[in-house]
Amino acid sequence: MAKVLYDFSAEPGNNELSVKEGETITITNPNIGGGWIEAQNSRGDVGLVPEDYIERLSSACTCLTSGAEDDEWDDEWDDMKSTSGYPESESGDSGAIQRGGHASSMKISLNKFPGFSKSGPELYLLTKQPIKSKDRLPIYMGEVGPVWSYPTTQLDCVVADPKKGSKMYGLKSYIEYQVTPNTTNRPVNHRYKHFDWLYERLLDKYRSAIPIPSLPDKQVTGRFEEEFIKMRMERLQGWMTRMCRHPVISNSEVFQLFLSYKDERDWKTGKRKAEKDETVGMMIFSTIEPEGPDLDPLEVEQKCEQFSRFTKAMDDGVKEILTVGNEHWKRCTGPLPKEYQRIGKAFQNLSSVFTSSGYQGESTLTDAMTAAGKTYEEIALMVAEQPKKDLHFVMETNNEYKGLLGCFPDTIGFHKAAIDKVKEGDQLVATSKITPQDKTMMAKRVSVMSYALQAEMNHFHSNRIYDYNRVMQLYLEEQVKFYETIAAKLRQAHSQFTTM
Amino acid sequence: MAKVLYDFSAEPGNNELSVKEGETITITNPNIGGGWIEAQNSRGDVGLVPEDYIERLSSACTCLTSGAEDDEWDDEWDDMKSTSGYPESESGDSGAIQRGGHASSMKISLNKFPGFSKSGPELYLLTKQPIKSKDRLPIYMGEVGPVWSYPTTQLDCVVADPKKGSKMYGLKSYIEYQVTPNTTNRPVNHRYKHFDWLYERLLDKYRSAIPIPSLPDKQVTGRFEEEFIKMRMERLQGWMTRMCRHPVISNSEVFQLFLSYKDERDWKTGKRKAEKDETVGMMIFSTIEPEGPDLDPLEVEQKCEQFSRFTKAMDDGVKEILTVGNEHWKRCTGPLPKEYQRIGKAFQNLSSVFTSSGYQGESTLTDAMTAAGKTYEEIALMVAEQPKKDLHFVMETNNEYKGLLGCFPDTIGFHKAAIDKVKEGDQLVATSKITPQDKTMMAKRVSVMSYALQAEMNHFHSNRIYDYNRVMQLYLEEQVKFYETIAAKLRQAHSQFTTM
Repeated sequence: MAKVLYDFSAEPGNNELSVKEGETITITNPNIGGGWIEAQNSRGDVGLVPEDYIERLSSACTCLTSGAEDDEWDDEWDDMKSTSGYPESESGDSGAIQRGGHASSMKISLNKFPGFSKSGPELYLLTKQPIKSKDRLPIYMGEVGPVWSYPTTQLDCVVADPKKGSKMYGLKSYIEYQVTPNTTNRPVNHRYKHFDWLYERLLDKYRSAIPIPSLPDKQVTGRFEEEFIKMRMERLQGWMTRMCRHPVISNSEVFQLFLSYKDERDWKTGKRKAEKDETVGMMIFSTIEPEGPDLDPLEVEQKCEQFSRFTKAMDDGVKEILTVGNEHWKRCTGPLPKEYQRIGKAFQNLSSVFTSSGYQGESTLTDAMTAAGKTYEEIALMVAEQPKKDLHFVMETNNEYKGLLGCFPDTIGFHKAAIDKVKEGDQLVATSKITPQDKTMMAKRVSVMSYALQAEMNHFHSNRIYDYNRVMQLYLEEQVKFYETIAAKLRQAHSQFTTM
Repeated sequence: MAKVLYDFSAEPGNNELSVKEGETITITNPNIGGGWIEAQNSRGDVGLVPEDYIERLSSACTCLTSGAEDDEWDDEWDDMKSTSGYPESESGDSGAIQRGGHASSMKISLNKFPGFSKSGPELYLLTKQPIKSKDRLPIYMGEVGPVWSYPTTQLDCVVADPKKGSKMYGLKSYIEYQVTPNTTNRPVNHRYKHFDWLYERLLDKYRSAIPIPSLPDKQVTGRFEEEFIKMRMERLQGWMTRMCRHPVISNSEVFQLFLSYKDERDWKTGKRKAEKDETVGMMIFSTIEPEGPDLDPLEVEQKCEQFSRFTKAMDDGVKEILTVGNEHWKRCTGPLPKEYQRIGKAFQNLSSVFTSSGYQGESTLTDAMTAAGKTYEEIALMVAEQPKKDLHFVMETNNEYKGLLGCFPDTIGFHKAAIDKVKEGDQLVATSKITPQDKTMMAKRVSVMSYALQAEMNHFHSNRIYDYNRVMQLYLEEQVKFYETIAAKLRQAHSQFTTM
């Protein structure tokens, strides 16, 4: 039994139960999770109520179902927010650091792998652990410098066909996406939480060497359910495409498992194996094998500084575009179409006054003015719809890059910590904390890290050049179409006027 | 001698004198007019000071010049105001009635012709005065109903070549415009005050039958002297064109004098004659000779109501366009170009970050992004300049019509007063105030007034249809060019991106 502390109005279609302050309800399932309990009111209605809204009256609980599916809980349906700007809560200035990938994910990782956070870069710099040959990540010298080993055929996948499923006897619903890789061409189903699981695995394993961009926000904003699903799917697709394009990630066992598990058993086995993977954190560098000569620690430091400066500067540039784009989005979807609509209405109103003149030969002008007015109303609609056709992709691409760039300080931080450790080398030898051989090995290993960072930066640059060329092409193409369509419509409106 | 009551700071270049509260100055010319006096301070500087800022200490005045040119005073240079919206102080909602033609001009006329205001419509309705044959204004039946007699060649004139002149020993300056009619093709010079004199003559003579639009405001707003002169000239041109197009006005003696006086003596003689003209006010109807049968008073009333409704409705429509246009003007010259500029800057900034990547093969993208950024800066300039090329004419035309429509309630008022008088006819006969013959004559004369109103409305309608066709054509033509130019620029920017 529980007493209701505050009024709560159920969202329609969400299996919630409206309750009033002071009402007594029976808890039918306290283990729903996500801050919800299932309860029954005195009229026999059963539904979900926020935990914080009630006070339990007795500790004896009449649970109907067990909490077996507890860890399956996925509150992806909560907290949809409406917004007038571009639907991305992170597009402000302050959002990135607080909500972006590296800060929060850092916390998760450090908590989950206390050994890693305790030992810092030494874990790898001084490790004696042998490398398993199948995990080897070679780095070659390409035209642009150190590069990862790229596959001959690029992996790709399509995220599509979101389907609503339900669980807990229909109490809560979730969305399952179909993911089809170009390798097997066989779709597998994944819920958001599975993507999140994959993300956590990739983060644990690769983040010291490869920035892993965050998944799209759990609470993506969207006014309507459909819009929300579409937006999340589009962003999951963007995330998957980026992962597929990465030669190291796309080739990893866990990523392959996610894309092409054969059946439920295969998935469960693979999952357990991936969770037990020990080549995580700094240890990823132990698998990296560059083909070039060892780098001088000074050169390593310079490269690291250069990348740090570049990613910081690009982060600023990307945020500027997002800020400007967000304002432009608001203007294009708000005041601007309203103004065109008012212009259109004003022409039409004057035309309708003219119709009442009783003067002969009025109709050519009034027809033309009405048509011109309607044209401006059409332009109003076009203006309001246009950002979805062009600015949207500029925003999505820059949002993606903002997320990715937000991970770089993290990745670069591991390099800086290692460089600092190597700098201490002489002192460590002097105080007999390490041997001179250890010192030599540390310098060699920080060189490996630098090769990895350079390979990653080159991968980043080549993707960036492709992505920005593509998004600018798309944007300008749609902008050209937009202005040409307006010009054509106005030309048509113009042709109806005559001064004889 | 005078004591200065308040601090006054001289406007540079305006022949004014800065004075301080408490200072004693010598009045060198009290007859400047326009609220100014000329004074000399203790340091010997001479300049203009506002009359209200000083208190005269003695009635003995040491005038240096007489007030001979008093009536020549023209303070057209004062009170220039700056504005962020469309430069027309009347474009608000309340302006028209307070500042438009009919209200203020009504006051002027009633004051100047007290006989007219005392006797009302009777002056004409019951007049026995014979019509001078040369003043005859015939009305014919055209396809559209009653029409004025139109000349075979339409009068036209060009207002151009504003030249600065000065007077009072260079103390104040004025602008003289060259007015060249297509009849003589010989330019005559006129200052604003001459246009104003013409306006007053036309108002006195024709306003009961023909709405005479106000001259452009004395204090047209404009940020710079040049802009101010250009705007005033354009509006004087608009006003003159409208007057030239009117068959009655263009053919009038006073208008012909204004356009084609031979020399100073001719002008002075004509001026005196025009000022003594007695066929003014309601008496203008005594010169009108419609060719149709007399109209039934009921029909007269219906026509009058119809025109009243139409002009009121059109006035609302025109004001709506002005309001919407003014807002659009502000947006196009203010926030919108700033936004395009920021978009352009954001692209260029990101491009310059990319340049610092140190990655090979970067320049194609960075060149393209810089070009795209510059294109948006160009678009910003285009957006800001565009209203002057198109919206300007929509605003000018509608401003002109607002002024013209503001005169209609006045003109229609004379008709309504006459109709009311005719309605009293039976009672006036019964109380022996008029004879039955007078009553018949009144009905006949109100019919003449109705013919005149119909001829005027038909003139108005035909001009309106031409004007609105023309302004819409011009607007849409420029809009098409604008959007096509943007599309072409963006197409050029687009061509520089490549995804290989």
